[in-house]
Amino acid sequence: VIVTLAGGVGAARLLAGMVQVVKPTDITAVVNTADDMVIHGLYISPDIDTVTYTLAGISNPETGWGMAGETWVTMHELELLGGTTWFRLGDRDLATHLYRTQRMSEGASLSQVTSELAASRGVGVRIVPMSDDPVRTRLSVEIVPPDGGADGIPLLRSAGQEQIDITIEEIGFQQYFVKQRHQVPVRAIRFAGAENARPAPGVLEAIATATHLIVSPSNPLVSIAPLLAIGELRDMLATRRDHNVAVSPIVGGVALKGPADRLLVEMGHESSAVGVARLYAPWASTLVIDNADAALAPRVEAEGMKCIVTDTVMSTPAKAASLAKVTIDACE
Amino acid sequence: VIVTLAGGVGAARLLAGMVQVVKPTDITAVVNTADDMVIHGLYISPDIDTVTYTLAGISNPETGWGMAGETWVTMHELELLGGTTWFRLGDRDLATHLYRTQRMSEGASLSQVTSELAASRGVGVRIVPMSDDPVRTRLSVEIVPPDGGADGIPLLRSAGQEQIDITIEEIGFQQYFVKQRHQVPVRAIRFAGAENARPAPGVLEAIATATHLIVSPSNPLVSIAPLLAIGELRDMLATRRDHNVAVSPIVGGVALKGPADRLLVEMGHESSAVGVARLYAPWASTLVIDNADAALAPRVEAEGMKCIVTDTVMSTPAKAASLAKVTIDACE
Repeated sequence: VIVTLAGGVGAARLLAGMVQVVKPTDITAVVNTADDMVIHGLYISPDIDTVTYTLAGISNPETGWGMAGETWVTMHELELLGGTTWFRLGDRDLATHLYRTQRMSEGASLSQVTSELAASRGVGVRIVPMSDDPVRTRLSVEIVPPDGGADGIPLLRSAGQEQIDITIEEIGFQQYFVKQRHQVPVRAIRFAGAENARPAPGVLEAIATATHLIVSPSNPLVSIAPLLAIGELRDMLATRRDHNVAVSPIVGGVALKGPADRLLVEMGHESSAVGVARLYAPWASTLVIDNADAALAPRVEAEGMKCIVTDTVMSTPAKAASLAKVTIDACE
Repeated sequence: VIVTLAGGVGAARLLAGMVQVVKPTDITAVVNTADDMVIHGLYISPDIDTVTYTLAGISNPETGWGMAGETWVTMHELELLGGTTWFRLGDRDLATHLYRTQRMSEGASLSQVTSELAASRGVGVRIVPMSDDPVRTRLSVEIVPPDGGADGIPLLRSAGQEQIDITIEEIGFQQYFVKQRHQVPVRAIRFAGAENARPAPGVLEAIATATHLIVSPSNPLVSIAPLLAIGELRDMLATRRDHNVAVSPIVGGVALKGPADRLLVEMGHESSAVGVARLYAPWASTLVIDNADAALAPRVEAEGMKCIVTDTVMSTPAKAASLAKVTIDACE
């Protein structure tokens, strides 16, 4: 069995490549749930949904979230009502959240519901949340005083703005990522609940017995780090360090999607494959980096990781399959 | 100010008639909330929504619930997922429940949200829940043993079925009304939470100072009775008994809509205007009955209520306006 540690879009693309080269039922994806949130009373699990929708072939390739061919009747009506609409929920997508919330209110675990939804969508890959316990990414961000904002809404400071009366406020991941479009400086990141969270049922066993363990090209600080914040999961990964292969999500110093590059710098790391190597070296032995970063290979190796150089930009399904094959081979 | 005690469809029609003959802002509707429930994590308030949608001119006249011109994308998708779909929620209608649930999770009371939604919909009538505290109608219904049902789902006994191994199960109002289509025998009705519930802010004041108090032609046992189950509300109504006018929802022995007739008989009452008079006489002085029941007028009066005979079937807006005028005049 191949175990893949997964965030959102990057992981979903790699998994979509993987199912082209190995049997889907031989793959287990352990997915970040620290981005989960409750809005409108609905339990939303964005990374699990992105992975599930992508593997089901129903994801929206343009947005990187939600379903293809969506309609927006409910959101449009909610706008007319003056409701909370910064987190866009399409009409079909809503069914996923209604289903999950209802099942969890009936006592089902997130693992169970995730498995039910994957089965309903015809997904063969085993998709498992990292934990059934709540772990939530909280970001301390810089804010200018409330009177700087219209309608009494605190105006979050954007990068480069003059540093006047900065205060720090801790916000949830989706507030940072979606509402603020990750355009505000981050001072600190923590994973609330991680200290008491246990890996979801089967996660430790899957990692312990995996023939291959692959870390997706997901955000190291907010997609992969939450998994590592669960002590038992991190320890289990470390025991098999020499067989763990990671893909760098940073290419040519920048993130292909999202704020990974900016967050790395804000948290005092280098925004490069080398910065990623420093973070992953304690529990992974090989880093796959992009051809564009070939010159960094010696520095990655200096961090104690083997380095494989290939095309990591999954711009087509064929390229995703090719990258999947390289990472699988690298585990052997 | 005219205060109207309201359930769902019957009340909504009378209110729609009332706004044709008096200023909407001179009307306060105190609405039953004992039918409220949480499903898919969403807080649903069916009677408040029926009243609001009807007064906003956006209700679905064919179903008696939901919005006109609805689409069903989310429900269709939820069906594909094998989710809970017996309670139909249209795409536009869903926005109401998302809005309400989000605002309540932010700390808003049901009263506040009800008022916000009415304002957004351009409704001039003041719509107030009977209480901001949870009061829930619970019905003890007859069930045959689980092995009688397919898929392990208890098969509820329908009227006339042979009486074998009957057990009693207490279910929620929507389970009875929508899921079982009110086709199962009811042995008992209670309003859980009523003993500790307080009338919503402004309700007692509105009743105390109302120039007119009108009881809608709603189900006496599950739409009007929950209001009476709140002690302070019942006491306040009783203090002004001689100025309270009710409309019988039973015409020619049957309910125009819903299970009021059947429930009256099951609870040991007479399914007629006389049965309604017996229930309302302690706190209302006048009963408006239909022309079809003219012969019952002496029996209604024998129960201690004045009796007004008119056309109570609101089959057109003009007839609703006419009935509204008769009830208003009856208060004077």
